[in-house]
Amino acid sequence: MVEGIEFGAQARSWLSAFDHALAASDVDAAVRLFGDECFWRDLVAFTWNVKTLEGRGEIEAMLRANLAAIAPSGWRIEDDPAPHLVNGVGEAWLRFETSAGRGRGVLRLKDGKAWTLLTTLEELKGFEERKAEKRPMGTTHGVYRRERNWLEAKQAEEDALGATKQPYCLIIGGGQGGIALGARLKQLDVPTIIVEKNARAGDSWRNRYRSLVLHDPVWYDHLPYLKFPENWPVFAPKDKIGDWLEMYVKVMELNYWTSAECVRAAYDESSREWNVEVRRDGRPVTLKPKQLVFATGAYGPPNEIALPGADRFEGQIYHSSHYKTGKPYEGKSCIVVGSNSSAHDIAADLWEYGAEVTMLQRSPTTVVRSETLMELGFDALYSEKAVKSGITTERADLLFAATPFRVMPGQQILIYKEIRKRDAAFYARLAKSGFQLDFGEDESGLMMKAMRTGSGYYIDVGASGLIANGDIKVRTGVEISRLKPRSVALTDGAELPADLIVLATGFQSMNRAVAPIVSEEVADKVGKCWGLGSGVANDPGPWEGEPRNMWKPTQQEALWFHGGNLHLSRHFSLFLALQLKARMEGLPTPVYGLQKVHHKS
Amino acid sequence: MVEGIEFGAQARSWLSAFDHALAASDVDAAVRLFGDECFWRDLVAFTWNVKTLEGRGEIEAMLRANLAAIAPSGWRIEDDPAPHLVNGVGEAWLRFETSAGRGRGVLRLKDGKAWTLLTTLEELKGFEERKAEKRPMGTTHGVYRRERNWLEAKQAEEDALGATKQPYCLIIGGGQGGIALGARLKQLDVPTIIVEKNARAGDSWRNRYRSLVLHDPVWYDHLPYLKFPENWPVFAPKDKIGDWLEMYVKVMELNYWTSAECVRAAYDESSREWNVEVRRDGRPVTLKPKQLVFATGAYGPPNEIALPGADRFEGQIYHSSHYKTGKPYEGKSCIVVGSNSSAHDIAADLWEYGAEVTMLQRSPTTVVRSETLMELGFDALYSEKAVKSGITTERADLLFAATPFRVMPGQQILIYKEIRKRDAAFYARLAKSGFQLDFGEDESGLMMKAMRTGSGYYIDVGASGLIANGDIKVRTGVEISRLKPRSVALTDGAELPADLIVLATGFQSMNRAVAPIVSEEVADKVGKCWGLGSGVANDPGPWEGEPRNMWKPTQQEALWFHGGNLHLSRHFSLFLALQLKARMEGLPTPVYGLQKVHHKS
Repeated sequence: MVEGIEFGAQARSWLSAFDHALAASDVDAAVRLFGDECFWRDLVAFTWNVKTLEGRGEIEAMLRANLAAIAPSGWRIEDDPAPHLVNGVGEAWLRFETSAGRGRGVLRLKDGKAWTLLTTLEELKGFEERKAEKRPMGTTHGVYRRERNWLEAKQAEEDALGATKQPYCLIIGGGQGGIALGARLKQLDVPTIIVEKNARAGDSWRNRYRSLVLHDPVWYDHLPYLKFPENWPVFAPKDKIGDWLEMYVKVMELNYWTSAECVRAAYDESSREWNVEVRRDGRPVTLKPKQLVFATGAYGPPNEIALPGADRFEGQIYHSSHYKTGKPYEGKSCIVVGSNSSAHDIAADLWEYGAEVTMLQRSPTTVVRSETLMELGFDALYSEKAVKSGITTERADLLFAATPFRVMPGQQILIYKEIRKRDAAFYARLAKSGFQLDFGEDESGLMMKAMRTGSGYYIDVGASGLIANGDIKVRTGVEISRLKPRSVALTDGAELPADLIVLATGFQSMNRAVAPIVSEEVADKVGKCWGLGSGVANDPGPWEGEPRNMWKPTQQEALWFHGGNLHLSRHFSLFLALQLKARMEGLPTPVYGLQKVHHKS
Repeated sequence: MVEGIEFGAQARSWLSAFDHALAASDVDAAVRLFGDECFWRDLVAFTWNVKTLEGRGEIEAMLRANLAAIAPSGWRIEDDPAPHLVNGVGEAWLRFETSAGRGRGVLRLKDGKAWTLLTTLEELKGFEERKAEKRPMGTTHGVYRRERNWLEAKQAEEDALGATKQPYCLIIGGGQGGIALGARLKQLDVPTIIVEKNARAGDSWRNRYRSLVLHDPVWYDHLPYLKFPENWPVFAPKDKIGDWLEMYVKVMELNYWTSAECVRAAYDESSREWNVEVRRDGRPVTLKPKQLVFATGAYGPPNEIALPGADRFEGQIYHSSHYKTGKPYEGKSCIVVGSNSSAHDIAADLWEYGAEVTMLQRSPTTVVRSETLMELGFDALYSEKAVKSGITTERADLLFAATPFRVMPGQQILIYKEIRKRDAAFYARLAKSGFQLDFGEDESGLMMKAMRTGSGYYIDVGASGLIANGDIKVRTGVEISRLKPRSVALTDGAELPADLIVLATGFQSMNRAVAPIVSEEVADKVGKCWGLGSGVANDPGPWEGEPRNMWKPTQQEALWFHGGNLHLSRHFSLFLALQLKARMEGLPTPVYGLQKVHHKS
């Protein structure tokens, strides 16, 4: 076991050997520095991709392909944070340069060999963001016959973009993903338009159901450049987030079109640009961006299910994405189909308004109490405590990114053992109600479910208590077989009265949003988004190593996907923005290991 | 000369002696710890006032009056920043407690005795701000029949405040002063309404002349809680600041009434509340706050000057506060009366639009080049460099506040010696044009002029170059004797053609804003605002030691003044908010040394 100070020397020695090997183009020597179990996750710097290389063989192949073009140099170990041991594994922070830019990374050594290496691109040489020491002056010293002041120049730019001047990049979707990416692109002087179908920035949150608050804590949720202030609540109510996004768009000076919908987009291979038809305030506008980004939300179109007898049903029936409030349903019989996040939130909301609620659970759900998840899941990286101990959002994001998806389940399994022990009484009560709990096929819990399938879990902020005490009834392992005028018949033969049926039945893959706008062919060509190919139900292999299609080149030239929760939207907006900027500037971007498509949805 | 480490021991030893003396109520012993030249500046903690005690006698008197009630304890020297020497003077940061709250300060020792001591109140015990670890959860865990979500609760509160529920505090004026104070009061749960006459928050900036940008750099200008992001320009254009203020009001959830004007306010001594008539969107509303704050701007009503022959003048004539743009004046003859900030900005703006401009300089002006002031004036405390060296805005504000006004001129004289040397060529060119330069009666420069008279200076962002090369003509030591139909006659006998006359003739004292709203009697009773009583022209003695009336109790019960530049609005909003909160909670607030009134305007 290497001690702290010794590890610092070991890390420097490793890096020096790595540096020399790479500088000498000695791929074999570089690869020998990695252990039997090794992972190199690269975000743009080496691969111009979002890519995890697993094992020495994959690392070798990548280096042979890209090392010459990347020409890394200037490797150094950071002093603060200094190299240290974390659970016996040595962890060191790195900085380096490449032909195109400057990067930062995290190295983990076991027995003197690299176990995990994270390399990320932070900025492009010659195209650094104008912030901090480089922030714009705001005024040019001296007086001159200036045509426009700031407001006039901004107005002129807004009027021109999309009319007399084409944007380089068009982002479809103005939620947190589109907004975060737009902010990064603005910083990099990439002319961008964000197209948002709602009337105001933030409406995608305002339009959610009445009782919604974020389930991730504030420190996890910051947007780039402008963090939530110290007095922001831990869990932000939907309207408060909506207001923040609206003001962010304004103060970050984004070109954001509201009441604007992307109707059609087609890629012109010869001119290498998109022809996009947008309907803005009801009027058609044609745009010709070079790059098209879908930031339409991790969840694609709703999974509507066709229920026999729906035509005879006299009550209301709709997908969870249309649910607004339980107000009309006091005393009514409500059936919620599904048992994940939306199902729980909606069932609880209905109960609050005095409805009779039954949840139809079709498959087991992973439930974690919010307080427990805060403490065991978030505390180390995203908490007041973390901030005070020097773990900035930027550092937390890199540490989070430094754990390969192959390694993550093992770590999560340990965390969930602890969670289940700590909340044993809670889980026992919940199970007693008949509710079907699970923790994932490999017991790796909620985070892995999120990355693998985006469903099958609930962070409990109260609904589980209502289920446990019978206020919300649960029927498990059943589905609706048939609708009757005022009731539902279940697959186990039972019949339940029903005035309202909410289908919390999930969403399709994000790429299906491409179909109506571009084409079915292109939606199939780029394939399924998200998921890791872990082999669990709904996440079929082969193993991808990274979420499919997100924040990186796809099989359709100049078509990209951005999004995820606030954390991923924030962190990965940087990497996608750098890839787009590099292309705009005509820099070489040799993509290594473009993701192949194995599933279309 | 005490070395660094030795000084740490000396500081601790001094503080220990001070602590013991105070704890033992031994005022003599406490006072003996101060040097022959000594100053104790207290912001609320000891005096419930904004007060500088000068010399041992004044310190003794204050302690004899307030020590028992304040009951200070828990004195300790901070480790980071650690005690250190600055130009041979030992500087240490302190923390302490009082009966009511917790404070922070800065101590400077010379030869083992206190030279300057700054004590400030940071928070009230039992009424700490809900931020950081104490930030609100945003949602109460558990599900319950809640009546309102966040948006509904906020809406209900906004509807009630001023209608069915009275605010504790009413702030007249919604510029940066009113907004910063409003944000602090919100954090302290003091029901507050801000009344702004313009239609939108930020309009007080938007309505300024077209070319205006801030002349203070960004690091000096942050608002409380939500700092400008890293990409904010060094000098913000007026409209950009306007937008920031507008969004700040929204995300900080301030109760901010636009198109609302305070018409009349009268204090009811028996019920100890104000009767205030506000006109909101044209409709009268009666409010009964307990506290009334004027945040109407450091500059009171404009100094209009009556010019003989004005009735016969065929051109336009107005005060600088009404100037918007030079656009209509291409080729026109324009006279700008005055030679300070507004006069320079306006003269330059007119020149940009192709006008013929003559500045009538009535008295000498202190000019400093913006880049030079940035480097020699701001760099140490408010700059990227300062931030990177650990000087947060909060620390910079305290360091700034730690220099007594009696000591400041001496330090500024040295800075201005350097400035004049560095920019000797610039000044020579400017003087050659006939422009009358000065650096204050005691050569202490721009900062002292700002604190003493609020006028007589210009931070050069280009106009001086135009004056130096004759593009803007200057006539010095003259005034307008008479207006003719299309020209002005000057006191030296000359006559100048004139299509436009802009009177950059300054403003009255802030307390004159009280007269039309409350009464002349009360405006006289509270007296002049701002100024130090230094004895220079327009700042008549006696010496006050602090800006008159600002951020502290006045001679009118429950009437306060808040404002200043963005720095002072930010920093002193904390101290005023704490005083108001303490009164709301009925805490004892024994005010020491209530400022007497020596001047009415």
